[in-house]
Amino acid sequence: MHDGEKKIVSIKENADLVTIKDIAKKANVAPSTVSNVLNNTKYVTEDIRERVLSVVDELGYSPNLIARSLKTKQTNTIGVIVPDLTNAFFIEIVNAIEAYLYEKNYSILVCCTRENKQKEKKYLLSLVQKGIDGLLFLGTGLNPSHLLAKLPIPIVLIDRMIGNQFSSVSIDNELGGYLGTKHLLERGAKRISFLLGPLVLKTNMDRLQGYQRALAENGVIYDSTLIVQCEPVTYESGWEAVEKLDMDGVEYDAVFAASDFLAVGALRYLLHKNIRAPAPVKLVGFDGIPITEIFTPAITTVNQPKRKMGERAAQILIKMMKKDPEGRVNEVYEPNLIVRDTS
Amino acid sequence: MHDGEKKIVSIKENADLVTIKDIAKKANVAPSTVSNVLNNTKYVTEDIRERVLSVVDELGYSPNLIARSLKTKQTNTIGVIVPDLTNAFFIEIVNAIEAYLYEKNYSILVCCTRENKQKEKKYLLSLVQKGIDGLLFLGTGLNPSHLLAKLPIPIVLIDRMIGNQFSSVSIDNELGGYLGTKHLLERGAKRISFLLGPLVLKTNMDRLQGYQRALAENGVIYDSTLIVQCEPVTYESGWEAVEKLDMDGVEYDAVFAASDFLAVGALRYLLHKNIRAPAPVKLVGFDGIPITEIFTPAITTVNQPKRKMGERAAQILIKMMKKDPEGRVNEVYEPNLIVRDTS
Repeated sequence: MHDGEKKIVSIKENADLVTIKDIAKKANVAPSTVSNVLNNTKYVTEDIRERVLSVVDELGYSPNLIARSLKTKQTNTIGVIVPDLTNAFFIEIVNAIEAYLYEKNYSILVCCTRENKQKEKKYLLSLVQKGIDGLLFLGTGLNPSHLLAKLPIPIVLIDRMIGNQFSSVSIDNELGGYLGTKHLLERGAKRISFLLGPLVLKTNMDRLQGYQRALAENGVIYDSTLIVQCEPVTYESGWEAVEKLDMDGVEYDAVFAASDFLAVGALRYLLHKNIRAPAPVKLVGFDGIPITEIFTPAITTVNQPKRKMGERAAQILIKMMKKDPEGRVNEVYEPNLIVRDTS
Repeated sequence: MHDGEKKIVSIKENADLVTIKDIAKKANVAPSTVSNVLNNTKYVTEDIRERVLSVVDELGYSPNLIARSLKTKQTNTIGVIVPDLTNAFFIEIVNAIEAYLYEKNYSILVCCTRENKQKEKKYLLSLVQKGIDGLLFLGTGLNPSHLLAKLPIPIVLIDRMIGNQFSSVSIDNELGGYLGTKHLLERGAKRISFLLGPLVLKTNMDRLQGYQRALAENGVIYDSTLIVQCEPVTYESGWEAVEKLDMDGVEYDAVFAASDFLAVGALRYLLHKNIRAPAPVKLVGFDGIPITEIFTPAITTVNQPKRKMGERAAQILIKMMKKDPEGRVNEVYEPNLIVRDTS
């Protein structure tokens, strides 16, 4: 059998779009013969086989993948639905997905929902109609699980969970909330303000529960005036959240932001007010996006294994597409604390 | 005629994948009748037409877009080739492209070349074989113009130019180099170190020429020891470039980095060494990515109109796809200087 990869796509310097007809003409055989050689569908004498393959080597061969898709029911295309392309957390996951799937000869249709439920639905249907082989879903978290369940393709959820019927890759968000809070308590903090995104998202609710568990374990009484829900999750919201605490006269000696965007915003406010972290106000973020390392002072954060999450989700999806009987997979990774200047 | 959009994709809450057969069965007519109603291909009595359309209203209708693509030769899919998904400059352009094309009912196949020429070629051919309707090309700049010229689809280049035969959207990079340099000279700088990416990229060469023009106009002699080529263009490279100037004993009173990544890296080094910008070392970046505004101190930068570039490129591409006789379009925007804390 001829090299499998060459059959799919030629990457020669002079590659043009070469059809079976072009090859047949140059090799002086019938197009059906070329097809039989390339697809191994019928016996062809060694002589002719060699002649056809040497022409393929010379010209390259570019099958019409649309026509092929109709026959094979495969497009080698994966849909990726993502809430926000300007958020480095999602971008790092998408980047890892792209790198992994490129090696496996898949390309990705990237769809950005901008946290809009209608857009998410429209994209879901459009992707299925375009014949994607599988779907990686970083959803709005606004529970379209009844819609997802109807889609006739393998699906892997990333980060935000909806229902239990799908394969998924995520982190233990409760543990993340716990780790960040425990660290600040160990650093001497007594009144930790907790900034987080909307509590309708289970990720945020879980992080809050981790925060509460760490407080309880350390005998610190939970004070709801220290909890600020921020929406949208942006630098500005982080700034405004801490500014509001100050305006309301709420006392705090640390800030735990359940998103690095909020953490950076809060830190900018503290710097602006000359309340430099770590002293007197300590600060911890969440996600581990690059800016936390780059910012001066560098920001302590609860890190998510973003690359691993993207790669592993893509890997699980491909297994499902190949009907590899692994069954439903739900992988939950542990986040890890990265201690830097702000704590 | 029935509402055109509903024919293409149903976004009903309960939407499933509904075929012509499903509709025929429920409406108690032949599948060919449904097809005739939906495509207006043959007269159908008003009674039956109404009955079919009311079933379509009820069930939704999801045509097989792959089969349709074979007939119409259209996939409503646009290829986007981009060098680096973790660079906020490219991400902002891709984000603008996605938002614009979503409204026009196109989705995007996002391909990341990681500045690798082979990967770029492989992606180009794969995209064409997948039947994309058009290509937005943010290339490696490594001149695959002979390959691009062979592709049987409309193409718009963004940012990095190759050849003159394609439509394009870019900025006047020479002017950008000039503006940043002139600003630093006006702020009293005499020895401006210029950090830039590889000079094989025309964008960088143009920026260097702008730097030289500003020096010449102000009677400052060009000193090549102040020029540092950085590759890859990362935070680390920016740090190392300025560190090397110090180690080599090169005197400088300002840094102009022809990429915000390099500027942030250089600034981090200067902060680390307690050489705070703006005094005594002034600093200007290039691109206008979000971190320049967020960083403390905020970074002066030569800003590119990224959103406009992405939107306009997508708009030009759609016009070309519709054979709107606008001819080849080469749009060049002026960058603008955003003055912040570092200068």
